Amino acid sequence: MPEAGAPEPIARLVQEFSKLPGIGPKSAQRLAYHVLRASEDDARALARALTDVKEHVVLCDTCFNITVHNPCAFCDDEQRDRSLVCVVEQPLDVLVVERTGGYRGLYHVLHGSLNPIDGVGPEQLRVQELLRRVEAGGVVEVIMATNPSLEGEATSMYLQRLLQPLGVKVTRLARGLPSGADLEYMDDLTLSRALEGRQEL
Amino acid sequence: MPEAGAPEPIARLVQEFSKLPGIGPKSAQRLAYHVLRASEDDARALARALTDVKEHVVLCDTCFNITVHNPCAFCDDEQRDRSLVCVVEQPLDVLVVERTGGYRGLYHVLHGSLNPIDGVGPEQLRVQELLRRVEAGGVVEVIMATNPSLEGEATSMYLQRLLQPLGVKVTRLARGLPSGADLEYMDDLTLSRALEGRQEL
Repeated sequence: MPEAGAPEPIARLVQEFSKLPGIGPKSAQRLAYHVLRASEDDARALARALTDVKEHVVLCDTCFNITVHNPCAFCDDEQRDRSLVCVVEQPLDVLVVERTGGYRGLYHVLHGSLNPIDGVGPEQLRVQELLRRVEAGGVVEVIMATNPSLEGEATSMYLQRLLQPLGVKVTRLARGLPSGADLEYMDDLTLSRALEGRQEL
Repeated sequence: MPEAGAPEPIARLVQEFSKLPGIGPKSAQRLAYHVLRASEDDARALARALTDVKEHVVLCDTCFNITVHNPCAFCDDEQRDRSLVCVVEQPLDVLVVERTGGYRGLYHVLHGSLNPIDGVGPEQLRVQELLRRVEAGGVVEVIMATNPSLEGEATSMYLQRLLQPLGVKVTRLARGLPSGADLEYMDDLTLSRALEGRQEL
């Protein structure tokens, strides 16, 4: 143990916290020392929640949203409009669209967006699965709800070209989303408006 | 599972992250979904670090700093000046004073400051242990490095009244620390200056 440093288990906890997005070295240190002061139950509860998420959460075989039960609650819900499929980049985006309360169709989670620089091509995303879903029939409209970023737009255009020949209507969220922003930080009203004003590609 | 919500294990992880200081509901959600995307190894490493900290970190019997080995590296280091004891509120404050590189004495960690509103009295802090350390002899000077807050100042004054009769010199960090600030966010230079200019109480 270097005299000027924290004991090894704490240094390691600081390091692990630092790996999380938006947690800098100072915040990580603060969090680690908070854990030291916190009850053992709280520390164990967080540790347990971390491993449980990895153990119990799977992807829905149909829409690839995260779920504990397969098929997921959306795909399993007979009340939802199965002719509508909303394509999003990430599972969190499903929650964001749901929060608007204005959508009653199904989802398809791509798990990313096309990004040649980072080596993300169509084969890294759930693209083939989307095409097969549409080919299987019953889908009337596919709504592109990818992020209004360069990658999101490119992904949307790419999918539109593949889906158009299948005779399905392809729309995207209305302009109204500020460009370069991240879907999960949009307010509900902006997202509701964008959903209402979606335009055919 | 409520349709609009996240699957239970994720909701629980969001909830556990929210308990950490400075992590709001949005940040907690972002962190939880990051964990979902991250490797299982990373999630397990954080979970392991959390439980290890609780299992392997103890308090030094002498200075009550956190440590893996008892006595801690400071109390065990024959090179350090054993006639000097620097009193701090929290274990993290030890690291902050060490970073200045200008202190070669020992420490005493109170684990808090006097706060009657929150029900923290001298018996909740390591006050008796500090008095016994000084009574045991060998300590020439006790440096108060409590936070420059109302509670920190009150703690410092309270300890000064108890220590003075024991024939020990009691000093405190020089004014120069902006009042109301938190010790752990001070820059090294400000803290070095405050350490050099410490004044007898």
